[in-house]
Amino acid sequence: MGLIVQKYGGTSVSNLDKIKWVAEHVVKTKEQGNQVLVVVSAMAGETDRLVKLCLQVMDPPDERELDVITSSGEQVSSGLLSMTIKSLGHEALSFQGHQIRIITNNAHSKAKIVRIDAERIKDILAKGSIVVVAGFQGVDHDGNVTTLGRGGSDLSAVALAAALDADSCELYKDDVDGIYTTDPAMVPNARKLDKISYEEMLEMASLGSKVLQARAVEFAKKFEVPLHVRPTSKPDSEGTWVVEENEEMSHMENILISGISFDKNQAKITIAQVPDSPGVAANIFTPLGDSGIVVDMIVQNISIEGHTDMTFTVPRTDFKKSIIITEEIAKKLGAKNILSDDKITKISLVGVGMKTHSGVATTMFKALAKEGINIMMISTSEIKISCVIEEKYTELAVRTLHDAFELGEEK
Amino acid sequence: MGLIVQKYGGTSVSNLDKIKWVAEHVVKTKEQGNQVLVVVSAMAGETDRLVKLCLQVMDPPDERELDVITSSGEQVSSGLLSMTIKSLGHEALSFQGHQIRIITNNAHSKAKIVRIDAERIKDILAKGSIVVVAGFQGVDHDGNVTTLGRGGSDLSAVALAAALDADSCELYKDDVDGIYTTDPAMVPNARKLDKISYEEMLEMASLGSKVLQARAVEFAKKFEVPLHVRPTSKPDSEGTWVVEENEEMSHMENILISGISFDKNQAKITIAQVPDSPGVAANIFTPLGDSGIVVDMIVQNISIEGHTDMTFTVPRTDFKKSIIITEEIAKKLGAKNILSDDKITKISLVGVGMKTHSGVATTMFKALAKEGINIMMISTSEIKISCVIEEKYTELAVRTLHDAFELGEEK
Repeated sequence: MGLIVQKYGGTSVSNLDKIKWVAEHVVKTKEQGNQVLVVVSAMAGETDRLVKLCLQVMDPPDERELDVITSSGEQVSSGLLSMTIKSLGHEALSFQGHQIRIITNNAHSKAKIVRIDAERIKDILAKGSIVVVAGFQGVDHDGNVTTLGRGGSDLSAVALAAALDADSCELYKDDVDGIYTTDPAMVPNARKLDKISYEEMLEMASLGSKVLQARAVEFAKKFEVPLHVRPTSKPDSEGTWVVEENEEMSHMENILISGISFDKNQAKITIAQVPDSPGVAANIFTPLGDSGIVVDMIVQNISIEGHTDMTFTVPRTDFKKSIIITEEIAKKLGAKNILSDDKITKISLVGVGMKTHSGVATTMFKALAKEGINIMMISTSEIKISCVIEEKYTELAVRTLHDAFELGEEK
Repeated sequence: MGLIVQKYGGTSVSNLDKIKWVAEHVVKTKEQGNQVLVVVSAMAGETDRLVKLCLQVMDPPDERELDVITSSGEQVSSGLLSMTIKSLGHEALSFQGHQIRIITNNAHSKAKIVRIDAERIKDILAKGSIVVVAGFQGVDHDGNVTTLGRGGSDLSAVALAAALDADSCELYKDDVDGIYTTDPAMVPNARKLDKISYEEMLEMASLGSKVLQARAVEFAKKFEVPLHVRPTSKPDSEGTWVVEENEEMSHMENILISGISFDKNQAKITIAQVPDSPGVAANIFTPLGDSGIVVDMIVQNISIEGHTDMTFTVPRTDFKKSIIITEEIAKKLGAKNILSDDKITKISLVGVGMKTHSGVATTMFKALAKEGINIMMISTSEIKISCVIEEKYTELAVRTLHDAFELGEEK
């Protein structure tokens, strides 16, 4: 009994049969005594179709009109789901971003949610109607249609759950049945987690695990919305809860590491023997940042005879652009030369448990060394350790670490 | 120079090439020094596709959700047209019903426009931007999406032209190049009219001429919006103006009749020898009206020995339903029997000129009689004369009357 927000992605509503299944599941949740608000994505393929149409008109497309056009996908699916629920004999009402209203800033196609006026929705839910909300979309202060960026429906759901103070936000996934210790496609005995903390999930999400959008998890953490990742295919399965870190999580002796994530979209650049002086780091990273390149790891070696080596990673997709900018910087700073490599992977161990335990790093380095895998960069935070290795060792490294920390299913 | 509203139907924006043509034409109008607001329908076939989808979910579909879903068609086409205009280097902004706002009552799928808040649009036009408005849609007082019924985009255009006090409202048609004296498919030398009055157009529209929706013409008449029906295929052609009746129209000796319309969607029913007493007409037509049947012509013969014959016409699509209801009424009123015929056509002569001329009816009856066409019912108003004839004579009657009133192109 409570107020539950459910979110269904595009593949879960890709045709009328699937929409009917979703409607039945929503009705079931309602009949269990809950108030239910549902957030839907566009029918699978629809957003791509609309974007393609726009690109034929204008490339890059005008962002204001792109948002008007792409948001129609969720408009249709929300109407169809609401109608299907009604056809099952239950009250339902669809709402678009401009109706609720979901107010965003005016950064078209990547808008940020500013405010949600939830009072009307609360009334409607209290009166017993199911509410179906078109995900992905909002309106700015002038009433222009905006969208939240790809995968934005997760964010819509979390934000609505926060605004309504919902008891949980269930994110239904078609392709996974929860959050795993690592990619099950790579490690066959990867184990589904029952629970994971927001912090861990954030590290997993931003480090390349694609189940949940990092922005949605951040939002959930900020407003303490309990997330429940559940498989559409097995609605009675427990899935994975993403919640506030609690005593149990950080003190259970045997849970040092929650998961292992990896990110192949990485490239590294080294500026060798750059004269070391105050402000050198700013001189290097300001031009990169100004060009919209997100620098991830940064490692600076100790200064020898007034010179230092600075190594950093960038998304592989920005590699060429980064090289060009870095070459200019190197010339200006009088560095010796530039080294670069785009055949690397970042592997990360994530776990709130490691905060209170030493030895995690040692175990990691030993395990990799035993397999002859060279570590090129290391970076640590309170709840993660990341190592950059050669890309070709990715699978071997993930499996080795998964075994070393005994993360797998018991056999 | 002025403020021009242009409306393009679904076939005019059925693909990106056609949208580009429309965009270029809009830009041309703008470059001639005008402020331009464009109203678009959904891309041809899109509304049908969406309605079909809804019917698979629920039949009849929930009307609130149907409006949410079908209005997405105009949302997409308005965005695409606006983007295309921008790609040509001109400023353009799309607007949906909820943004302008076009306020309607809450009669979903056949909503009536209550008010348009045109101030923001006026500002935007004054600043030099082209405005593209999604036709067909509005919002009710609670912000629910509504639609105006099939062909509603004509009405959107006329209402916006009225709200903006536009200099003209151009309705672009793909299939016709203006209003004709009668259907050119039936009468090869039918003549395109340069001008027609609202009143005449209303009679033509409601009598079966399908070029303009009667509601749009009524609205134009009420707010004195000059309508300009123009062919998309020949944008430089003069088309037909639909305007306020003026001196010139009603006094030019040789324009008695503007056009001939015909309506085959007609059926007639006679209640024979019904006892004639006060209230008998009400007793007959109240139950029909209550069942949503629109009775058109009514003819009552003079009463003989306390009994009268009452004949009326109904839409052929409501024929069977009307028969059933009429049989019950006949029984109740003690009428002798019922006669019916659904193989009839109503032919009408329309013209403001006939107000000040006698002899139109005589010419009509003589011309029909000469061809052996029997007149079954007659009904007249200030600017029209309608006759019901056997359906099989439709084409012959239209051509005969077209010749009799010398409406054709000069040879």
